[in-house]
Amino acid sequence: MKLEIHLGSASYPITVERGNLSQAGNLLNLNRKVLVVTDQGVPGSYVKRFAAQCGQPVVQVLPQGEGEKTMEQVTVLCRLMLEQGFSRRDCVAAIGGGMCGDLAGFAAACYMRGIDFYNLPTTLLSQVDSSIGGKTGVNLDGVKNIVGAFWQPKGVIVDPDTLSTLPRRLWAEGMAEAVKMALTSDAGLFEQLERGELEDRPEELIFRALSIKKAVVEQDERESGPRRLLNFGHTIGHGVESAAGGGLFHGECVAIGMLPMCSSQVRSRLAALLEKWGLPTRCNLPKDAVWQAMIHDKKASASGFAAVFVDQPGAGYVKQISHGEMRAILDGGWPN
Amino acid sequence: MKLEIHLGSASYPITVERGNLSQAGNLLNLNRKVLVVTDQGVPGSYVKRFAAQCGQPVVQVLPQGEGEKTMEQVTVLCRLMLEQGFSRRDCVAAIGGGMCGDLAGFAAACYMRGIDFYNLPTTLLSQVDSSIGGKTGVNLDGVKNIVGAFWQPKGVIVDPDTLSTLPRRLWAEGMAEAVKMALTSDAGLFEQLERGELEDRPEELIFRALSIKKAVVEQDERESGPRRLLNFGHTIGHGVESAAGGGLFHGECVAIGMLPMCSSQVRSRLAALLEKWGLPTRCNLPKDAVWQAMIHDKKASASGFAAVFVDQPGAGYVKQISHGEMRAILDGGWPN
Repeated sequence: MKLEIHLGSASYPITVERGNLSQAGNLLNLNRKVLVVTDQGVPGSYVKRFAAQCGQPVVQVLPQGEGEKTMEQVTVLCRLMLEQGFSRRDCVAAIGGGMCGDLAGFAAACYMRGIDFYNLPTTLLSQVDSSIGGKTGVNLDGVKNIVGAFWQPKGVIVDPDTLSTLPRRLWAEGMAEAVKMALTSDAGLFEQLERGELEDRPEELIFRALSIKKAVVEQDERESGPRRLLNFGHTIGHGVESAAGGGLFHGECVAIGMLPMCSSQVRSRLAALLEKWGLPTRCNLPKDAVWQAMIHDKKASASGFAAVFVDQPGAGYVKQISHGEMRAILDGGWPN
Repeated sequence: MKLEIHLGSASYPITVERGNLSQAGNLLNLNRKVLVVTDQGVPGSYVKRFAAQCGQPVVQVLPQGEGEKTMEQVTVLCRLMLEQGFSRRDCVAAIGGGMCGDLAGFAAACYMRGIDFYNLPTTLLSQVDSSIGGKTGVNLDGVKNIVGAFWQPKGVIVDPDTLSTLPRRLWAEGMAEAVKMALTSDAGLFEQLERGELEDRPEELIFRALSIKKAVVEQDERESGPRRLLNFGHTIGHGVESAAGGGLFHGECVAIGMLPMCSSQVRSRLAALLEKWGLPTRCNLPKDAVWQAMIHDKKASASGFAAVFVDQPGAGYVKQISHGEMRAILDGGWPN
């Protein structure tokens, strides 16, 4: 299955197909220098299979974890390209989860003011979400993705077969992002997820989730309007993630962050789904710590938050609310 | 005098007017948080005058010199904005030479994936050249501008009165870039410069030079074609600059780099002009050191260089040449 993303600044294909990691050389222009960015959590066999299809691969294996998404690592990647004589005609490819894509994508955006970038997401979370939309970036002083660029990939390859080696906890956090898409935009998909229909058909699940995101991103590449819908669960979620300091995965934080933004009816259906997948529905972090991180988030402003609510499945909406209103939602979100 | 730059991705005004630094509050949207980036070489009175027109100014004075154009300084600027609670609706303004603009512009491009940037160049070099075109960036391991972004300012204010405090050597390096524009694109301007007509009319000189650059940049925002013409003198010039390790100013290196690319007739006229302004027409750096820097430049490629030649004033052209041809030009450029 193939999706073509059409943006003002660029267009690119996303191919979703079991086994297509072995087709990368046919699908992408790899007959040049390719900086292959991956991390220690990605099976070496995937990296080898991909690198074997590159003309001149330079493989960089990063330590694992969100803590590595730093300006220092961007400098390391740029320095490596410089040492290896990368020109404007060469490219960067990420193979791994969102951390690899965010970091490698930002390095591609900056090196020589921008070279080609390919993304080969291997986790469910990155396959349904960060592989599309062109957001790249790194963290600074514990604030997520505060430094970065919008830089669209030249092509994305999603191979659902890579999910066979994905630990259960990483699979579940991907489901959290998938249910986010469903709740804001696709009631039918939400009901299918409740019936457990797509859990053994990841290809279809990924394609459906990406189709939702494609429609939103194409309307609003730089997140000035409709794209804010995709921020559902992320306002509180990012606060939880910062306050947890690495103790919780991104999708787990989104799971916690979605619940307080739902009507009570949707909330109980969502909670049941999250629990089935082993996702958290609350946490014991101090609310004040979560709040401090929330007001420093790049989507916050002096006047408040563009908050995303879901009263009915498939019908998310954005509403500007004050700091006081947001704080009340957070305080009522879960017992501390 | 006002120029409006029209690009696919953005449009912005450049105002060239004596004393307009005092009009910044009327010309730009400064009623918000403004990170004012300047350096120790810029008269404090300019910075104060500008900051007084900002709603919430945060002034950062950088150490002087190209050596400060680093990823570490970008991180410092982003961290400062984070600490001061800058949101996506706030902005960055550079007041100073090209170093301030390149660094501050890149920080603006990256912070929260891009916020508004204003440029207030106070040197002749930055007024005729780097204030327009949207190139931002920093150096890495001695290679100039190797990491950066294309990020267009929202507005540019050029106040020629700031040139009254400019040291003679900095004035001369600005003239080198102005004569570059004239030689590639405007024979009339070159002749006026030879007759010394515009030296006491900086406003007109700046406007003429910017008009040339505007026409080129509007055709080719990302330097894939016609914009390469503006690279005249920069292929060898960048090599000289890297090899000199800070001993020569950018415009001085461009002066040296232009001469070997001219026909013998143009060369002698250009040399006379450069000498009149006290600019160097040769240097005693080892050719091998210059060459090593040239082949690592981001405009070089495995197949050679897009070199810019001027056989007649006003009629520059780009020609793809091999490494061997370029090396021969360098070797014949000046006696070592």
